[in-house]
Amino acid sequence: MAACGQPKHRIIIIGAGFGGAYTAKQLRRRLGDRVVIELINDSNYFVFQPLLPEVASGTINAQDAVTPLRLMLPGIEFRMAEVRDIDFDRQIVQLVQGSKRRLLESHYDHLVIANGQATNLSFLPGFSEHSLTLKNLSDAHHLRNMVIERLEHADITKDKVLKQRLLTFVVAGGGFSGVETIGEMSEMIARTLKYYPNIRPDELRGILVQRGDRILPELPASLAAYAHRQLQRRGISIRLNCGLKSASATAVELDNGDRIQTATLVSTIGNGPSQLVLELQEKQGLKLERGKIVTQRSLQVSGRENVWSLGDTALIPLTENPRTASDYAPPTAQFAVREARCLAANMAATLAGRPTRSFHYKPRGSLASIGNYKAVAKVFGVRFSGVLAWSMWRGFYMLMLPGFITKLRVALNWFLDYFVPRTIVQVSTRATRACRYVRYTAGDLIVVPGQIVDGLYIVVDGQLEWLRTGPDGQRQVQQLDAGEHWGNQFLPDNLATDDTLRAATDCRVLILRRDDFTALHDALPPIREYLNTITAKASLENQ
Amino acid sequence: MAACGQPKHRIIIIGAGFGGAYTAKQLRRRLGDRVVIELINDSNYFVFQPLLPEVASGTINAQDAVTPLRLMLPGIEFRMAEVRDIDFDRQIVQLVQGSKRRLLESHYDHLVIANGQATNLSFLPGFSEHSLTLKNLSDAHHLRNMVIERLEHADITKDKVLKQRLLTFVVAGGGFSGVETIGEMSEMIARTLKYYPNIRPDELRGILVQRGDRILPELPASLAAYAHRQLQRRGISIRLNCGLKSASATAVELDNGDRIQTATLVSTIGNGPSQLVLELQEKQGLKLERGKIVTQRSLQVSGRENVWSLGDTALIPLTENPRTASDYAPPTAQFAVREARCLAANMAATLAGRPTRSFHYKPRGSLASIGNYKAVAKVFGVRFSGVLAWSMWRGFYMLMLPGFITKLRVALNWFLDYFVPRTIVQVSTRATRACRYVRYTAGDLIVVPGQIVDGLYIVVDGQLEWLRTGPDGQRQVQQLDAGEHWGNQFLPDNLATDDTLRAATDCRVLILRRDDFTALHDALPPIREYLNTITAKASLENQ
Repeated sequence: MAACGQPKHRIIIIGAGFGGAYTAKQLRRRLGDRVVIELINDSNYFVFQPLLPEVASGTINAQDAVTPLRLMLPGIEFRMAEVRDIDFDRQIVQLVQGSKRRLLESHYDHLVIANGQATNLSFLPGFSEHSLTLKNLSDAHHLRNMVIERLEHADITKDKVLKQRLLTFVVAGGGFSGVETIGEMSEMIARTLKYYPNIRPDELRGILVQRGDRILPELPASLAAYAHRQLQRRGISIRLNCGLKSASATAVELDNGDRIQTATLVSTIGNGPSQLVLELQEKQGLKLERGKIVTQRSLQVSGRENVWSLGDTALIPLTENPRTASDYAPPTAQFAVREARCLAANMAATLAGRPTRSFHYKPRGSLASIGNYKAVAKVFGVRFSGVLAWSMWRGFYMLMLPGFITKLRVALNWFLDYFVPRTIVQVSTRATRACRYVRYTAGDLIVVPGQIVDGLYIVVDGQLEWLRTGPDGQRQVQQLDAGEHWGNQFLPDNLATDDTLRAATDCRVLILRRDDFTALHDALPPIREYLNTITAKASLENQ
Repeated sequence: MAACGQPKHRIIIIGAGFGGAYTAKQLRRRLGDRVVIELINDSNYFVFQPLLPEVASGTINAQDAVTPLRLMLPGIEFRMAEVRDIDFDRQIVQLVQGSKRRLLESHYDHLVIANGQATNLSFLPGFSEHSLTLKNLSDAHHLRNMVIERLEHADITKDKVLKQRLLTFVVAGGGFSGVETIGEMSEMIARTLKYYPNIRPDELRGILVQRGDRILPELPASLAAYAHRQLQRRGISIRLNCGLKSASATAVELDNGDRIQTATLVSTIGNGPSQLVLELQEKQGLKLERGKIVTQRSLQVSGRENVWSLGDTALIPLTENPRTASDYAPPTAQFAVREARCLAANMAATLAGRPTRSFHYKPRGSLASIGNYKAVAKVFGVRFSGVLAWSMWRGFYMLMLPGFITKLRVALNWFLDYFVPRTIVQVSTRATRACRYVRYTAGDLIVVPGQIVDGLYIVVDGQLEWLRTGPDGQRQVQQLDAGEHWGNQFLPDNLATDDTLRAATDCRVLILRRDDFTALHDALPPIREYLNTITAKASLENQ
């Protein structure tokens, strides 16, 4: 421990999920002002992850499900910044922060890596482009708005195929997160349907796709079976033993060849190491296993005395000779909080020159809500289901929520939700990316006659077909290959087209929004010339 | 009135502000199922505009300040869509809706234009790019997040000039909206400052810029003077008789030549006709005056029996020979609600072949909150100020809020706000536009050594200077003119630069975000070649 007059020890914690935030809290409690604790996170709030499905379904307001970190962790130096790199030998964290995005270096004596896992869906074609995830508050808010947008569009469209696609909701993954998400979504839709006079309940489809032979593998089979029956009773179709193959703007493809026409795919699968952790593995030999940082039972990273990890980021052995998945700590909030307590004690011991102790914890239970005032739970070995389990689930969350104010806010939201109709306010996220990749399935109609052309379509791979009526009144078809583009002739005047643009094969298209096209077009004369030339050439070729 | 068997009359209402939404409600009440009422709006909720400053300051959750239109207006056919055009002769509204953005036509027997006013700031250079507005829920949500972001950045920066700029907040316009906005913002910042240990209260600057010789011209001079004193006492500087000249990424310029270094400019000025109304004036001879649709005292649009207008959209005479501004209905919620009642009665009369009556209304009073539990009010000719006026102001809003549920939500928010700390959760809006125009003032440092280059900088007008160290160790300066770009050499590897990019003159730059640059670069080979060639050439020229 730093003696009087000596510089204080600096502890840097990366990530403010359950692992990082509770480590900061415990360290502050144990070591007080004798150390400087710097917490680095990319948002300024702590999000209670298990509540995200309830935010997505509008039960809880987005702002009420989270706690500002500066409020939750007094005495901690908080920095909203992005970690770019870590140098273990120089004991330096390199970060980018603030409006100027300048590179900064911050020195540490002890480092805690707790930045969680990232979603990597690149192994499934189209998933990165078309699946919604539920990792943070923004995701939950976005999912809620997307569901409402689908209902708004379905209520006014006259196109039956489009309507069915808009009213089909697919969730990938049948674990806790997938089950709670589809349960909450189905409850939300059921409760708001009365405002959409042109949508009949039997037009709605909810589909849960699970690779394993049952849902909720984290819970006993009998509870999973209960949840399964409850979801089925509410009209949700559960596809077991079923893998995912690809997604497009219009459909999800399963590995048995089935195609589900849908506009809304939520993915709860594909968790893997963050970019930062992958780079540390590559450049500095950080040891990963099962996509996680391997730690000792003391929570120190193997081979580094002053680097620690916990939570979803870490692979933490529960026995001396771990063999199967169950010999490691599971990635739950319950475990992360206990790990934080152990980590803080061990770091304090290390600073004082005392020995560390091994992490061990016996979980008290597991709970999963399935919406509609029902849940399943196993607590102290006893199984519960239905309204009783649901009450326990809410009570347990109340206990876990950090701070009185957040508890009060969530309680008020729950209270209101019971008595008043679920709100269907669609708060638009301000702006979408200028460039977005879209994957289409062969045969998909991308642009149809009468549609306002809203962007420039650039073929990335695969082929498109452009169908139009030539000057002689004959129908003409032109093929567009990778690197070719379509739409610029309609964009300057914001016109509707008489043409059709169709996916000739499965393909990937980059769409540049109209406003951004216009801005680039106006600012860079050579690009303007290039785009116009190609159109002229393409038009001539076919005449 | 349509007899049995005849097709029902179709009424289309465009816009769901106070004017449009209350017209729909009144028409439904008067005419019931005998007519079809279609309400078209670009969002699916009714926003209680006067509460937006409170949403921006975090007193009220964004979702709680609004009411879903489908809930508020049962029996009305609601359509979330964008109106593209109106054909008065064919009695057709042309609209774009849904995910496919197809053009649709909808026929009307009677039409109500109530789409409000738009903000047009193009007459002030840099205002479109750099001022925040407060017209809708998304604006309010965004402003709140921007203020918190400034505090987060100011708390961690070591750059004193940047810190002062981050902590200076400028509001343009000293009417109701401007005064309430700066009052609420200053209260919010004062209440949250305790979480930012590196910001001292005396580092904060709030500036209200007003063209006239006093604030709140809508209220008696004595009340305006009270509000003025109260705001000053809280450290807000009020610049009277002061016009605005321009804005940039770093400063606001006043017409007396003063420059205020600021990163946050909120504009409550520049209201004018919407694009739709302007086009109707141009193409179909709709008569505008003072930027509004001229109506008769019956609220019928001059020259058209079956076209109506009200609210902010319309210029409604209160006397037979209107001369000054006070002879027309003011653009307030109070008036819009009364206008809606009169419009519905007159339309019912027209359908029944009865004569219409002239609109007249004597307002009960005016109120403006200045934050910190204080307000100013003039009600039934009597003046009030301080906590009493503030209580009246809240009570009046409670009365005006549509529906019990919204009242309950807002009341709970107010209650909570009194007892618990203001939340500083920064919920990021998901994505920013790929291309954004930024205006810089001569001398501004745009990119500095050590900064990660986050986009491609394209000069739209003016000149930039690129400063770097050549291979011989000498400092080199290169000028970039309109159409030239900078940054592509750093983008592929996400590198920090050692160079400086500076505004040589006042200039406008289009910045294309890194992700979008990369996507376009990869998808369009000729663009890649063009961009790389220019860099290579530019680099060679100077060696």
